[in-house]
Amino acid sequence: MTKGNINVSVENIFPLIKKFLYSDHEIFLRELISNATDATLKLKHLTNVGDAKVEYGNPQIEVKIDKDGKKLHISDQGLGMTADEVEKYINQVAFSGAEEFLDKYKDSAKDSGIIGHFGLGFYSAFMVADKVEIITKSFKDEPAAHWTCDGSPEFTLEASDKTERGTEIILHIAEDSTEFLEETRIRELLNKYNKFMPIPIKFGTKEVNDPEHEPKTTKDKDGKETTEPHKQITVDDIINNPNPAWTKQPADLKDEDYSGFYRELYPMQFEEPLFNIHLNVDYPFNLTGILYFPKMSNDMQMQKDKIQLYQNQVFVTDNVEGIVPEFLTMLRGVIDSPDIPLNVSRSYLQADGAVKKISSYITRKVADKLKSLFNNNREDFEAKWNDIKIVIEYGMLSEEKFFEKADAFALYPTVDGTYYTYEELFNKIKAKQTDKDDKLVILYASDKDAQHSYIESAKAKDYEVLLLDSPIVSHLIQKLESTKENITFARVDGDHINNLIKKDENTISKLDEDQTKALDELLKEVIPSEKFTVQLEAMDSNESPFTITQPEFMRRMKEMQATGGGGMNMFGNMPEMFNLVVNTNSELVGEILGTKTKKKQERLINQSLDLARLSQGLLKGEELTNFIKRSYEMIK
Amino acid sequence: MTKGNINVSVENIFPLIKKFLYSDHEIFLRELISNATDATLKLKHLTNVGDAKVEYGNPQIEVKIDKDGKKLHISDQGLGMTADEVEKYINQVAFSGAEEFLDKYKDSAKDSGIIGHFGLGFYSAFMVADKVEIITKSFKDEPAAHWTCDGSPEFTLEASDKTERGTEIILHIAEDSTEFLEETRIRELLNKYNKFMPIPIKFGTKEVNDPEHEPKTTKDKDGKETTEPHKQITVDDIINNPNPAWTKQPADLKDEDYSGFYRELYPMQFEEPLFNIHLNVDYPFNLTGILYFPKMSNDMQMQKDKIQLYQNQVFVTDNVEGIVPEFLTMLRGVIDSPDIPLNVSRSYLQADGAVKKISSYITRKVADKLKSLFNNNREDFEAKWNDIKIVIEYGMLSEEKFFEKADAFALYPTVDGTYYTYEELFNKIKAKQTDKDDKLVILYASDKDAQHSYIESAKAKDYEVLLLDSPIVSHLIQKLESTKENITFARVDGDHINNLIKKDENTISKLDEDQTKALDELLKEVIPSEKFTVQLEAMDSNESPFTITQPEFMRRMKEMQATGGGGMNMFGNMPEMFNLVVNTNSELVGEILGTKTKKKQERLINQSLDLARLSQGLLKGEELTNFIKRSYEMIK
Repeated sequence: MTKGNINVSVENIFPLIKKFLYSDHEIFLRELISNATDATLKLKHLTNVGDAKVEYGNPQIEVKIDKDGKKLHISDQGLGMTADEVEKYINQVAFSGAEEFLDKYKDSAKDSGIIGHFGLGFYSAFMVADKVEIITKSFKDEPAAHWTCDGSPEFTLEASDKTERGTEIILHIAEDSTEFLEETRIRELLNKYNKFMPIPIKFGTKEVNDPEHEPKTTKDKDGKETTEPHKQITVDDIINNPNPAWTKQPADLKDEDYSGFYRELYPMQFEEPLFNIHLNVDYPFNLTGILYFPKMSNDMQMQKDKIQLYQNQVFVTDNVEGIVPEFLTMLRGVIDSPDIPLNVSRSYLQADGAVKKISSYITRKVADKLKSLFNNNREDFEAKWNDIKIVIEYGMLSEEKFFEKADAFALYPTVDGTYYTYEELFNKIKAKQTDKDDKLVILYASDKDAQHSYIESAKAKDYEVLLLDSPIVSHLIQKLESTKENITFARVDGDHINNLIKKDENTISKLDEDQTKALDELLKEVIPSEKFTVQLEAMDSNESPFTITQPEFMRRMKEMQATGGGGMNMFGNMPEMFNLVVNTNSELVGEILGTKTKKKQERLINQSLDLARLSQGLLKGEELTNFIKRSYEMIK
Repeated sequence: MTKGNINVSVENIFPLIKKFLYSDHEIFLRELISNATDATLKLKHLTNVGDAKVEYGNPQIEVKIDKDGKKLHISDQGLGMTADEVEKYINQVAFSGAEEFLDKYKDSAKDSGIIGHFGLGFYSAFMVADKVEIITKSFKDEPAAHWTCDGSPEFTLEASDKTERGTEIILHIAEDSTEFLEETRIRELLNKYNKFMPIPIKFGTKEVNDPEHEPKTTKDKDGKETTEPHKQITVDDIINNPNPAWTKQPADLKDEDYSGFYRELYPMQFEEPLFNIHLNVDYPFNLTGILYFPKMSNDMQMQKDKIQLYQNQVFVTDNVEGIVPEFLTMLRGVIDSPDIPLNVSRSYLQADGAVKKISSYITRKVADKLKSLFNNNREDFEAKWNDIKIVIEYGMLSEEKFFEKADAFALYPTVDGTYYTYEELFNKIKAKQTDKDDKLVILYASDKDAQHSYIESAKAKDYEVLLLDSPIVSHLIQKLESTKENITFARVDGDHINNLIKKDENTISKLDEDQTKALDELLKEVIPSEKFTVQLEAMDSNESPFTITQPEFMRRMKEMQATGGGGMNMFGNMPEMFNLVVNTNSELVGEILGTKTKKKQERLINQSLDLARLSQGLLKGEELTNFIKRSYEMIK
């Protein structure tokens, strides 16, 4: 038996690192700025603990494009490196100086915000550069060093005359990466990855009004005022906010700080968020962040992937799938955690215990916040309900724990704009809307306009009608029916109101058995049976003579299939089913029966049917045009 | 100045490879099966060129789960390795045996389908295993070798008594990766990554009917027939199709082969594709594949990302963004190319010359196919138009080259189901639909039902009305107007038809100036000016007394904003604007003027306005309910 060591030669691995270290080449800038940030944070820590006897000052990081020289410079004023340290940290691929530092200063540097991990980031420079230089001067009293490497594993190291503390990286941008010499491209990257990093990052200069200079206003002889222009001065263009709101304590932030930060995150978003949730937890994992509830539209897909994930203020991704429960991916904001294992597969992430805890922590925080908003200012919560209900309803459907908690704040609005909790609704309607089989019938409409006449019939009986118009409401109804006891939901146009909530009383029909039979036969001759099932009902004589209804079950199943998707689409392909409810006690029905000629009878029935179809939005195209023509004739 | 070599120690790099080699751990199985495939293809090549004097036979690859032992086995019957070769290929991270092989057999092995590149794939095993064994016997007459490594850089190598040619990899699955001991999980991975790989892959066995055994049917005394059950035999469960359709020549494939392959790709898809395009090019890049046109719905987003990208029959991704032009990402099918640089950033991909050529090749092939379908069987093409138009229209909008080519086959259907090319349409309508300013007016409707009465008015003048109902049609219209000379599109409900196509003739008004003034004043008193702009027109007396129209420009801008998105939403927030066109020559208008009491006049105007609103779908809710009630009264 032989024993030995697996071997890796730099000639083999170096080309791979250049090509495949990160799937996205643009990441190189994030990595180099992270290194510069670490070098600065380390110096800060060393001066704090007294291991560096220098002035920390106000260090910044500078990114500079030299377009003619085809170079990109990244400089910091951090702790720098001696020639020996360059040998140690740079010439050894995958030896992490950050890890070594954190090991050494275990206790004191825990919260220093140091980013590095793997000692690979620097080499990402070779993804875009065919030559890289490092010019660095340590805070220690040693000469500066100048390292150069052209992408082969060979490097040169010589002395440099750099006198200021810190490190400058010079990338000689390769022919195929000249995009990284464009100001707009670099600004885009800085804005994406480094916008909230903790050390100020300078990228060129900009002109601003001189704050010291107050423009004078003079009056000419006619009394006309002229104000001289502001004096412009040139200042460093700092592209980042080193102290973003989420890194602060909630107690130190006002409402305008939260809305200001929202605009920092989404400069193109003009609408204000409805409210925010500040996340802040140390144990059993580290997580900070601010989530915002924006106004939601009904299109769930379009609103996803707006939450940004950071690790120690470095942007990582805007795909938080697996970390944030799915129903909350419609929110906006940031999450920052060093504890999320970012480089493992998404499927693994979802099974990871720590990540599951993060996910349920976020769910709980959101539920608590909603509950307190509801309790503290119910009026305001009701006013916002329509803009947030889609998230809450989706959460109720997808997270059992959230469903339970939501009982305290989920609202059920009526068509008249009263908002009930489930319990309030239950108490309000149980006396009147319990049917003869002791089942509580919750009436609802999905569209106030389209179902107006049906809503009126229900209101005439003093019933409450909810307005439930979310796209996923059929699923929520189904869930409520299976959770709450002995209740059923019925849309107002599912049947005649007397049948939706069946009571023991019966209205007596004006028609005797023979007349009923004659009417039934007559209607069946005229009304196409493949479209409508005729249903004779003895109702109040004032009620509409003809009404078209669509039975609840089939309609709801079709809706669930359309929004919940999947499966065999069993119901989706079924034709729509309608009933024609005919009020045998209406005057018009009496008139139909009383009319002598068949032709006139038919005309009456067809015109009534058209009116009933109009009321359900079923009269269209040529039939509607003809109806309108006939109607113009009638009013002349 | 010092010179030296950058250094990489296996202790540093090995943990990184284990953690981060691929962002998705599940990839390990694809990598190991790719290695097994390469080992087999290499043997095939060596036997072909006479460098291996052994029988190639019918080698297969086997994947086996040992759940109790917590092991996963992957074995092949390929060329195997000697102990020396294990030292060379395995113990050197990132030394690629595949590259070496391709170098050696440059000319003859060019099309051998060998997959490997970087000599890293094997190490992906350590992402899921804490110990890996290799037992391998070379086709050469040398003893078998047994290599073991527990994830530290240390390995052991000893002799093995394996006698059969080939390599077996044994993964001792780590505690956090036990998902890979589940049959369903492994089957899922095999199905995702290896479904079309070129060597048969066995995963367990399955029971099938014995093809040799014909079940006997016997009759009992009552003449009742009984058929004995099929005899079951156990066979290898081969999970892949080593010769998928796209690897064959188009000439060797029939229609049913293409639709059969579609079902292989999308087993859950019940609808047949409309047609397919076989891609096959060697120069200047290698690309094969089959694209299918499915029936498209109007939801463009939902249909994306169904095309699968392969490299030498190994599944890579279903994100073909950047490789396939965006408008074609709604298609389905496969693309296989060794020439697509997969591991570079997407933004780089889009700028890459080779990739651009691939993209324009695909666009051209699709345009050519559509043209030949149109030319060869226009009737069939017309029948499919509604299901494919969204792709074609989107392509016309986004790719200039495609827009030009599409002139030959893009269709413009009328509301009566006649399909014109642009040229045919132009010739058909230019005589009648050119207005007095010499502009050709192309009339269209977006909804046959909703715009029925307006369509009828246009047809009464013998005009053609197109039915353009795609969600992006407003953009296409805009583009056509700016490309073709001196034409304009007008939706039929944009104004009264006489104003949409203005001719020199004038209908004389029955009303004199005083009457016109009186009518105008009366109407303005009754009709709310914030909703409708009253517009008096002298029209044929038979035409509708009141008509509501919605001007083209604002409506189209709003539609474009709604579908094209973005920007300041300048038009989206504008209120909808409607005109009320009143036919001064209609009988009803005469009657309104003739009526003596103001109250009656108002009633006539309001009822007419309601009818006009009904025709434009604007009468809703309570107003509709009241209208219907009034109408029931009127027919009694």
